[in-house]
Amino acid sequence: MHRVIIDTDPGQDDAFALLLAIASPDVEVIGVTTVAGNVPVAQTADNARRIVELAGRPDIPVFAGAAGPILRAPRPVPEIHGDTGIDGWAWAPPAHPIRPEHAVDWLVETLLREPVGAVTLIALAPQTNLALALRREPAIAARIRQVVFMGGGYFEGGNMTPAAEYNILVDPEAAAIVLGAGMDVTAAPIDCTHSAPAPIDWSMQLEAMDTQVGRACAGMMRFFERHGIAKYGTPTRPLHDAIAVGALLWPDLFEGRRCPVEFECAGQLTTGMTVVDWLRQTGKADNCLWLRRCLDPAELYRRMQVELSRLPAT
Amino acid sequence: MHRVIIDTDPGQDDAFALLLAIASPDVEVIGVTTVAGNVPVAQTADNARRIVELAGRPDIPVFAGAAGPILRAPRPVPEIHGDTGIDGWAWAPPAHPIRPEHAVDWLVETLLREPVGAVTLIALAPQTNLALALRREPAIAARIRQVVFMGGGYFEGGNMTPAAEYNILVDPEAAAIVLGAGMDVTAAPIDCTHSAPAPIDWSMQLEAMDTQVGRACAGMMRFFERHGIAKYGTPTRPLHDAIAVGALLWPDLFEGRRCPVEFECAGQLTTGMTVVDWLRQTGKADNCLWLRRCLDPAELYRRMQVELSRLPAT
Amino acid sequence: MHRVIIDTDPGQDDAFALLLAIASPDVEVIGVTTVAGNVPVAQTADNARRIVELAGRPDIPVFAGAAGPILRAPRPVPEIHGDTGIDGWAWAPPAHPIRPEHAVDWLVETLLREPVGAVTLIALAPQTNLALALRREPAIAARIRQVVFMGGGYFEGGNMTPAAEYNILVDPEAAAIVLGAGMDVTAAPIDCTHSAPAPIDWSMQLEAMDTQVGRACAGMMRFFERHGIAKYGTPTRPLHDAIAVGALLWPDLFEGRRCPVEFECAGQLTTGMTVVDWLRQTGKADNCLWLRRCLDPAELYRRMQVELSRLPAT
Amino acid sequence: MHRVIIDTDPGQDDAFALLLAIASPDVEVIGVTTVAGNVPVAQTADNARRIVELAGRPDIPVFAGAAGPILRAPRPVPEIHGDTGIDGWAWAPPAHPIRPEHAVDWLVETLLREPVGAVTLIALAPQTNLALALRREPAIAARIRQVVFMGGGYFEGGNMTPAAEYNILVDPEAAAIVLGAGMDVTAAPIDCTHSAPAPIDWSMQLEAMDTQVGRACAGMMRFFERHGIAKYGTPTRPLHDAIAVGALLWPDLFEGRRCPVEFECAGQLTTGMTVVDWLRQTGKADNCLWLRRCLDPAELYRRMQVELSRLPAT
Repeated sequence: MHRVIIDTDPGQDDAFALLLAIASPDVEVIGVTTVAGNVPVAQTADNARRIVELAGRPDIPVFAGAAGPILRAPRPVPEIHGDTGIDGWAWAPPAHPIRPEHAVDWLVETLLREPVGAVTLIALAPQTNLALALRREPAIAARIRQVVFMGGGYFEGGNMTPAAEYNILVDPEAAAIVLGAGMDVTAAPIDCTHSAPAPIDWSMQLEAMDTQVGRACAGMMRFFERHGIAKYGTPTRPLHDAIAVGALLWPDLFEGRRCPVEFECAGQLTTGMTVVDWLRQTGKADNCLWLRRCLDPAELYRRMQVELSRLPAT
Repeated sequence: MHRVIIDTDPGQDDAFALLLAIASPDVEVIGVTTVAGNVPVAQTADNARRIVELAGRPDIPVFAGAAGPILRAPRPVPEIHGDTGIDGWAWAPPAHPIRPEHAVDWLVETLLREPVGAVTLIALAPQTNLALALRREPAIAARIRQVVFMGGGYFEGGNMTPAAEYNILVDPEAAAIVLGAGMDVTAAPIDCTHSAPAPIDWSMQLEAMDTQVGRACAGMMRFFERHGIAKYGTPTRPLHDAIAVGALLWPDLFEGRRCPVEFECAGQLTTGMTVVDWLRQTGKADNCLWLRRCLDPAELYRRMQVELSRLPAT
Repeated sequence: MHRVIIDTDPGQDDAFALLLAIASPDVEVIGVTTVAGNVPVAQTADNARRIVELAGRPDIPVFAGAAGPILRAPRPVPEIHGDTGIDGWAWAPPAHPIRPEHAVDWLVETLLREPVGAVTLIALAPQTNLALALRREPAIAARIRQVVFMGGGYFEGGNMTPAAEYNILVDPEAAAIVLGAGMDVTAAPIDCTHSAPAPIDWSMQLEAMDTQVGRACAGMMRFFERHGIAKYGTPTRPLHDAIAVGALLWPDLFEGRRCPVEFECAGQLTTGMTVVDWLRQTGKADNCLWLRRCLDPAELYRRMQVELSRLPAT
Repeated sequence: MHRVIIDTDPGQDDAFALLLAIASPDVEVIGVTTVAGNVPVAQTADNARRIVELAGRPDIPVFAGAAGPILRAPRPVPEIHGDTGIDGWAWAPPAHPIRPEHAVDWLVETLLREPVGAVTLIALAPQTNLALALRREPAIAARIRQVVFMGGGYFEGGNMTPAAEYNILVDPEAAAIVLGAGMDVTAAPIDCTHSAPAPIDWSMQLEAMDTQVGRACAGMMRFFERHGIAKYGTPTRPLHDAIAVGALLWPDLFEGRRCPVEFECAGQLTTGMTVVDWLRQTGKADNCLWLRRCLDPAELYRRMQVELSRLPAT
């Protein structure tokens, strides 16, 4: 059983990730923190509420965190995710409010209260909240069981610039703080997610579940894919953040290597790059399990659908 | 009347600054926050307790904050300040504890609670606490009356590298966050403080006050000057942080200019440099009152001594 | 017929490249310029003499050029190429001297004298000579037919650091000058060369040619592979520089894309990186044909051997 | 007697420097090389011809060099110097042509031909030509007697950006190559030149010489000062490049210190900055005599005028 906190900026693929984590009998989601990323933080928090409520889990608390990166300006991407961030479905407004505590405060308090090694962090967004929490209270690093993050890219380059992936580019300093804190970290980068595009008929399969969740997922999937299909010329697109949750649930489906990973914060062309020392040329210490590819994308999406089908039908 | 919070890393000159602020009838110190800087944060908090108690104000609360800069490693300088940071006097251990709240939390809560425009921040250390507070709650920027900080250098270059002054070099990203937040900011850089070395017989004058405070100040002054006299070849040294408090109290003694100020975070030789657009060559907006020099150093130290003599004799 | 100048730093794979170019009936080598790279410039010039003489072409002039990169220190790699750079064969000392003219001067004079569009440059080393020639006489850019260079890596990362390939890392500013000059440029990066390792029995096939050239090539190949096989864990290694000549001779064997390519000269972790905008995310202009892979490595080495067998038997 | 080569980009103050050097009985000008700087290189070469001919020395050869910096784009400043670079006087067109050799080639040949230690270089422009010559033939460094350059600023900041002076900003990499070559170097930075503004009635004094040179100088001075007077709010301006020649002729009038000097080539705000380790905080080796101020500006200009009056009256 994984006891998890999910830090996120929904985002359609974040929505899939949240639904998958909530659906899984192997995961207990104790809270969701949100941050500025794909859309502004007030919107990501509101979206997270809608998602946990769609999943039939209105009890999961949602906390809003940082309104922007540590040093840089926010970079919302409505051209990818739509104005709401979770365009593609007619979402009901949230029935319950966002919690009043700041996400960073709640992270610190919760991690200090929970037993050492009890909580896993799933980071699906720019890592500003986690970095601020680590700087606010360094002792939390030793209490976290592991961090699984979606972000970065090395063999695939970047998806925002030739060198940088979105989650890292938006707040490279935050990512450097998180990876520098000495925790057990697994990365699900675009090297990995791009190896696992959704099945061709995935939207139809989701639709065929004939549930509210299935219809919402189908709608989001159709919206989410449009930008990427046009950009990459592929027939479908991978659900990046959901794949990161999949990497936690089903490590047998992924191949990777522990090696030294760093983030470029100061290049003229390469700021936000994830520098993976795959060949261990630097002599630095391994600090991350870098998932290079998914070994069986069809099985991955099959398992995802099995989980999603556990969610309540209405 | 200035209602102030002092963020500090004592440091002998920080001690003078605290004593001066507490002594002044024009200042009300509502709290002291400390940070890693001249010595580690646990020590700076302990030092701040000793100082407020020496001043006869054990009621002033002291909060410990960040244990290191946002992105970089701490840079303690015991070669300047001694192992305790306030070497030069046989300090009594603190009678009261440090407050349990984290300095950043207390800053945020206090600034949100106090009326808009009520509180002035005096920043005498690397600005990590203020930066984390601003990122944790951006709304505090609009509630702060003004910030007066000791740090930076432009016409004088740097005191740690040819380009960088200590407080900025230790956490240039924090300084960038603070100056970027749109507050009313006054800088007391080494351009200014180096123009105001202490009088030749300052230690003796302090000693001659014949109070505990006077003797503590004399002892600290003698210790503090040794490093700088050897380095600069001058007969005495300026009390940097106390001069920043002086700049708040007696603006008539200082000359400066509002202009655009930025911090270099990414140079090969210049990281931590304070880049002052004194001639307004960049076209950027003015964001700081840069104090270039003290117009009457003798008068400045005379007034300081008048204030210090207000403190209780034991 | 390609009329070529080869700029090189032999290097065993440079030796194969020179021999291949000289052997090909489709190439006329009008001169060889050498530079500091794998070994110091005096040694690379001496090596080039030995190679043209082994090929039975003592008439090809060899010119020595820059003793180091434009801004940085030289980085010889005897651990890869041996102390001579072309270890693995008992080379006869050169019978003819290096030409007294500086390589940069000869490049400029020759390119100004030859008809516009007559000469192709094959660049197999750090590009210092070409960059200095372009800065000395910018008009040569418009007279060069095309440049084919071995260097860089994007999908494969780097072979010296996680981000940088050797030829670019040694002199990234030179590479930036060359690619910035507006010429028709083709890159044979390690993305391409790593897709074309030599056949398993390549040394034996070379040996079986039963010529001096065949024996020299077999000896060099055995020496050259040792470092890379240990590093990459592959059974054989690619002949990087010879593959670049192959790309000029047999474009049908390669797949690539014209796109914007730049070099990072100022990163903390990424200096020397070749930043390839494969997805055209930057909106910059295409300036390079980036060869991503060899489509038929077996055929490539077969054709190389056919060419090498044209060289005189003694 | 100083046997000098002057590398320059006239510029009115360069014109004064050339006239002063030619006029001085202690200087023999063996050639003038020009570079892109204040105006494009073809114009600077043409200007240099006009100046040597005005000085009655048509025999001094002028060579045109680099058309732009090593890595960066040219930055002409007609807003300061006028469209010709030497606006302010009705110059006669040159009677003799620019020499056909490239400035870099002539520098290398001349320095290799002249006895070791015979030639002093006076560098009054972006140092591209010298850097290219040093990279083309490193052996010239040991043959040069000394280099005196106008450029940089530390205590005065910069005159183009808050951190960078013009000659260094235009080609910081060239300056780094020159200072890195181990020669005997003296800097006349704006720290020094700004301490020596021209006398209030300087134009009138020049006019009163009642010679062609005097009238040309008076006209140039009036033009040259306009931009700087408006920018700095001073009544007159210093003749930067002429002061560098003055520093060679009359070291008794200047105060400075040998210390480590470097150039920032990669800052976000500070590219082109001259980083002077005046306090020797870095532990690096001294590599430059940094002239911090002129001790007697009135005497400096008086001596200049004495020299200029030696030039032929027509």
